[in-house]
Amino acid sequence: MRATFIYGAGDVRVTDAPDPRIVEPSDALVQITHACVCGSDLHPYHSAPHNPAGKSIGHELIGVVTEVGAAVTTLAVGDFVIAPFAISCGVCEFCRVGLQTSCVRGGFWNDDDLGTSGGQAQAARVPLADGTLVKVPGVDPATADSGLLASLLTLSDVYGTGWHAAHRAGVTAGDTVAVIGDGAVGLLAVLSAKQLGAERIILMGRHRARTDLGREFGATDVVADRGDEGINAVLELTKGGATKVLEAVGHLPAFQQAIGIVRPGGVISRVGVPQYQDGPIGWSFFGKNTTLTGGPAPVRAYIEQLLPAVLDGTVHPGRVFDRTVGIEDTPQAYAAMDAREALKVMIKL
Amino acid sequence: MRATFIYGAGDVRVTDAPDPRIVEPSDALVQITHACVCGSDLHPYHSAPHNPAGKSIGHELIGVVTEVGAAVTTLAVGDFVIAPFAISCGVCEFCRVGLQTSCVRGGFWNDDDLGTSGGQAQAARVPLADGTLVKVPGVDPATADSGLLASLLTLSDVYGTGWHAAHRAGVTAGDTVAVIGDGAVGLLAVLSAKQLGAERIILMGRHRARTDLGREFGATDVVADRGDEGINAVLELTKGGATKVLEAVGHLPAFQQAIGIVRPGGVISRVGVPQYQDGPIGWSFFGKNTTLTGGPAPVRAYIEQLLPAVLDGTVHPGRVFDRTVGIEDTPQAYAAMDAREALKVMIKL
Repeated sequence: MRATFIYGAGDVRVTDAPDPRIVEPSDALVQITHACVCGSDLHPYHSAPHNPAGKSIGHELIGVVTEVGAAVTTLAVGDFVIAPFAISCGVCEFCRVGLQTSCVRGGFWNDDDLGTSGGQAQAARVPLADGTLVKVPGVDPATADSGLLASLLTLSDVYGTGWHAAHRAGVTAGDTVAVIGDGAVGLLAVLSAKQLGAERIILMGRHRARTDLGREFGATDVVADRGDEGINAVLELTKGGATKVLEAVGHLPAFQQAIGIVRPGGVISRVGVPQYQDGPIGWSFFGKNTTLTGGPAPVRAYIEQLLPAVLDGTVHPGRVFDRTVGIEDTPQAYAAMDAREALKVMIKL
Repeated sequence: MRATFIYGAGDVRVTDAPDPRIVEPSDALVQITHACVCGSDLHPYHSAPHNPAGKSIGHELIGVVTEVGAAVTTLAVGDFVIAPFAISCGVCEFCRVGLQTSCVRGGFWNDDDLGTSGGQAQAARVPLADGTLVKVPGVDPATADSGLLASLLTLSDVYGTGWHAAHRAGVTAGDTVAVIGDGAVGLLAVLSAKQLGAERIILMGRHRARTDLGREFGATDVVADRGDEGINAVLELTKGGATKVLEAVGHLPAFQQAIGIVRPGGVISRVGVPQYQDGPIGWSFFGKNTTLTGGPAPVRAYIEQLLPAVLDGTVHPGRVFDRTVGIEDTPQAYAAMDAREALKVMIKL
């Protein structure tokens, strides 16, 4: 098959790779129909050390089951499935409470221990398939609407991650929510906050096309300023701070911004993987009785809940995709997202 | 009146001070019957810069109302009251949701802006008396049992602070709770976790007399080890970590310990004022979907709730006091607590 590998910073290539095969009886094989590039893929794209052997990459995919192991009970060849970005058994202590990213048997794509390859490829072996994959009934990817397929693809990561931010923050009716970051996750955190009943949603971002989409998703205000100016703008709009702050960036200035704009007693929910080790959690954080929550989103926990509104067209999270390429053009997808020419690029296989 | 002032590190003295008087119509004056020294008073005792003018100190007190301003409506001369460590109006946005430590009109003892003096004195002016003070009906401090009075005094700070740790962590029936710190707040966090239904309570502390009291308050296990050894001991006892960690110390190693022992998806609730600016909230914290909460305890929000079990003798939080002195011996109280010869010292006026 053809698959995407990263060989170092800025060096992504598509090459031939062995076709995946069933290893464990709980495995399934999936022919990938749609994949994409994640904002988090840009971190290794910026900083991965040179690696002549290459490392497979990608973790968002939907596709069709082509083979199942002997122990798989809930899936059959031909099923159209969503694959979350985490592999999970579905039955351990953490899976049962909806924290599949801490599954005791699971792991992630591109994991040597688990023997998983990457999502930006023509096919994938999915360990713990019964726990991991979610079947989408009634949709044939060969004939379905491309917008619907794009929205289904967001359930593999970015929509579930935006939802996790809002859900863990406890966003509820009447809340004043601030979302930091106008990437795909930030925009889908806006959509999620809207679905959860937030009254006011302030989107902090400076890319007009993105913040315009944020307004369509439910943002009531946009603040383009950063740093102290951005903080003061939100404090003024909210008369003292947002009750819930959803941080979808992962860099330290975004977290500092979150502390500046959170209302006393409020919650900061982070879903951008922190690109820092230490953060300011002294008096300025503690004195306001701030709560910090969030983490890698157990999107598996949310797919069944979010699916109906996607299927019936109530929401269109797939609008975060503004470009589509074929597998051979995956390197250009990285370059376009890195240059911020594209918000999020779909790979149609 | 006689009152306690701090003149620099290790330099606490009792001296004559002007009697307090009504300044605002919402003030009350209180003749203090019992006060005490807080673990947090030891921070300036360790590090306050030399100050020849002295600064009043102390923030935990109970006593009898001796005068009320013209606007005070809920209190009368002769009422026996508990004074929380924060002054609060009772009617602002934050007071209404039980976050009196963020009251927009309030503040703390020993606050120049608010014109408050300290609690380790014979009398105090209490601003915003209707919001701040809690009347204890049916108790005459002149004749009441000394154990009961000690327990009532803990409601001014340490019991409410231990309760805040457990309450903000969301401790509930069946939880496995770890409490870091065997000071008065840690021990009362144990008692609070027990009251909230925790099934297992692991107290991390190394002072035998204190941890023995912790066992009486409800601790099921005691871990004396610190650092990696302490973390490993708790991970082994809990088979993977505590669901709720109550951090009642405030120093960075205690927070690092909390991160090490919290179960994936668990909560760290801090009530010790952090003596650090930056803390490790990168992947080791984020990857487990850890929640961090806590802050200065709005003890005013909890007094009415906690009072009945104190009055009827169901709980005896006042057992944290292991020494009583008169006002002239307040400096010795500091020295005894600093040397860890005393857990917590009451000042009987």
